[in-house]
Amino acid sequence: MIWKIGSSFAIFMNNMYTVSDLQSLISIEIDKEIYQLYHTEPKNLYEPVGYALSMGGKRLRPVMVLMACNLFSETVEKAFPVALAIELFHNFTLLHDDIMDGAEMRRNNLSVYKKYNENIAILSGDAMSIMAYNYLLKCNSTEPAQIIRLFSETALEVCEGQQLDMDFEARLDVSIPEYLTMIRLKTAVLLASSLKLGAMAANAPEKIADQLYDFGLNLGIAFQLQDDLLDVFANQNKFGKKIGGDIVSNKKTFLLLKTLEIADDSTKMFIHDWINKTSFDESEKILAITEVYNKLDIRKITEAYIEEFYQTALNVFEEIEVSTDTKGVLLQLANLIMSRDH
Amino acid sequence: MIWKIGSSFAIFMNNMYTVSDLQSLISIEIDKEIYQLYHTEPKNLYEPVGYALSMGGKRLRPVMVLMACNLFSETVEKAFPVALAIELFHNFTLLHDDIMDGAEMRRNNLSVYKKYNENIAILSGDAMSIMAYNYLLKCNSTEPAQIIRLFSETALEVCEGQQLDMDFEARLDVSIPEYLTMIRLKTAVLLASSLKLGAMAANAPEKIADQLYDFGLNLGIAFQLQDDLLDVFANQNKFGKKIGGDIVSNKKTFLLLKTLEIADDSTKMFIHDWINKTSFDESEKILAITEVYNKLDIRKITEAYIEEFYQTALNVFEEIEVSTDTKGVLLQLANLIMSRDH
Repeated sequence: MIWKIGSSFAIFMNNMYTVSDLQSLISIEIDKEIYQLYHTEPKNLYEPVGYALSMGGKRLRPVMVLMACNLFSETVEKAFPVALAIELFHNFTLLHDDIMDGAEMRRNNLSVYKKYNENIAILSGDAMSIMAYNYLLKCNSTEPAQIIRLFSETALEVCEGQQLDMDFEARLDVSIPEYLTMIRLKTAVLLASSLKLGAMAANAPEKIADQLYDFGLNLGIAFQLQDDLLDVFANQNKFGKKIGGDIVSNKKTFLLLKTLEIADDSTKMFIHDWINKTSFDESEKILAITEVYNKLDIRKITEAYIEEFYQTALNVFEEIEVSTDTKGVLLQLANLIMSRDH
Repeated sequence: MIWKIGSSFAIFMNNMYTVSDLQSLISIEIDKEIYQLYHTEPKNLYEPVGYALSMGGKRLRPVMVLMACNLFSETVEKAFPVALAIELFHNFTLLHDDIMDGAEMRRNNLSVYKKYNENIAILSGDAMSIMAYNYLLKCNSTEPAQIIRLFSETALEVCEGQQLDMDFEARLDVSIPEYLTMIRLKTAVLLASSLKLGAMAANAPEKIADQLYDFGLNLGIAFQLQDDLLDVFANQNKFGKKIGGDIVSNKKTFLLLKTLEIADDSTKMFIHDWINKTSFDESEKILAITEVYNKLDIRKITEAYIEEFYQTALNVFEEIEVSTDTKGVLLQLANLIMSRDH
């Protein structure tokens, strides 16, 4: 069994895949690629690429590509090259980010630079970025250059977002609009483009492809804000990472920046003191900062922002003119993203 | 004055640029890009890209692109996007190579990772690689996907070549065929593709575009072999780098590998001993290894290899069916490459 045939009656087709169908489909394709990569020379270039791909969780982005394609076509296979390109690119950014952040672990495995070495990680990442384009070129779209253009513009935006994120490390005066620009570039545009590129691979009407982009963009921002929130307020049992990691590392999250925006001077000083400490008890720091967040109602403020972007996404969703049944899967996706089951 | 109009009578056009014309033309374009890059945000992403581009010597590769275009078209401007893409990609590889090699200087300037920092250098390099595709997409060729495909395949080959080069560092048993594969990938394919892509940008006949590729490929291998030779036997006054640098760093050059192939056991031991020394006088090591090279006539052997690849390039050149006058500039290029005036 690979997938079930949906029972809904869509306008464009009667074969609508569920999220988990698409996850199964793309996982098989990715596994084939990983197998190939482990058998391609030079081994020190391609095996790390296979290793990086093998660590990838729920394949959210390629699933979005296939889902958007499926809104317009029964044969989601035509979007496989685009889905693989997006997954390769996403994992490339993680690979290089791990070097830059000195992150030794990724999803309970050694990160690539730690398992191999830094030079191999730099070069394998470079190869992944190039290979993403090679996958795109396999796409039988009527306008391949259009697909490559959107992908490439998005890829560059992701780099811009990563640079802004690094720039913010040295700053305490990052405004909320600046922060939203950063997460739009670093996180949201790739989710947005995943949907749009999937639609383009199925030669979808431009208007709907653009709406899917907007839907994904707002969902992506809501997703990242929620990621910030969960770092502090998640249920530790359900949360994959350690609670409070962002607080310990002074990460400029929405929560911290909003706090610095609205806090009185003595509270700001209190936060600055904690940020400047080089030696401290981690639990004590997490507790201290969380108490400030609680005092200032930062959780509710953040939730209101999340809700705003989520609602904007849903409003765009309402306007998308594909059949109601078809749209059900898109909503399933939105739920998947916002419940962080990825 | 930007360029002279050639006096030759070509079949396809009467406006044939010389190498130095093309260098002037592309330098102006690159300078415009550098100016833009210094005025684009985020500054920490794009300024290093501009800085990396500003260090680039004689613009050999983009000149090859324009020259190949000029064989078929008077308007070399149509190949500007391709030329810029190639130059960006080449400088991206230098930027990341410098991190991997720990090379603090590049053409008498601080390398990017030394001037900024390693994280900025990794990310700016990533952006350059992506930007190269964005330039390609500006090309008004009839088949943009074909151009992007050749570029992308070539780019991946360059990564393979770099990985092989790194792999060779830990090996003493690298064969000459393995070595030739490495320099073909690391150096020659980009020169070959520069010519072919320039021809494609002018919608040249496929057969001639392929011949130009072969011409560039053989020229590129001859060029790299000569680079190895000059490291030891160049005239120090004319040579930009320090004589013997490859010997000091145990680089697996053609000279060293050929020596290890043909030397008797005691000479091999002698070489191995020098390679394994961690503390030594550099001049003494250079002298000792050079004496071995002289004893084994390595210079003549290397020159014979260079001549073989150069002659193969010239044989391909003879077969290329464009006018004799037009071909004069191609020969000018071959001379430029082999005299290392770049």
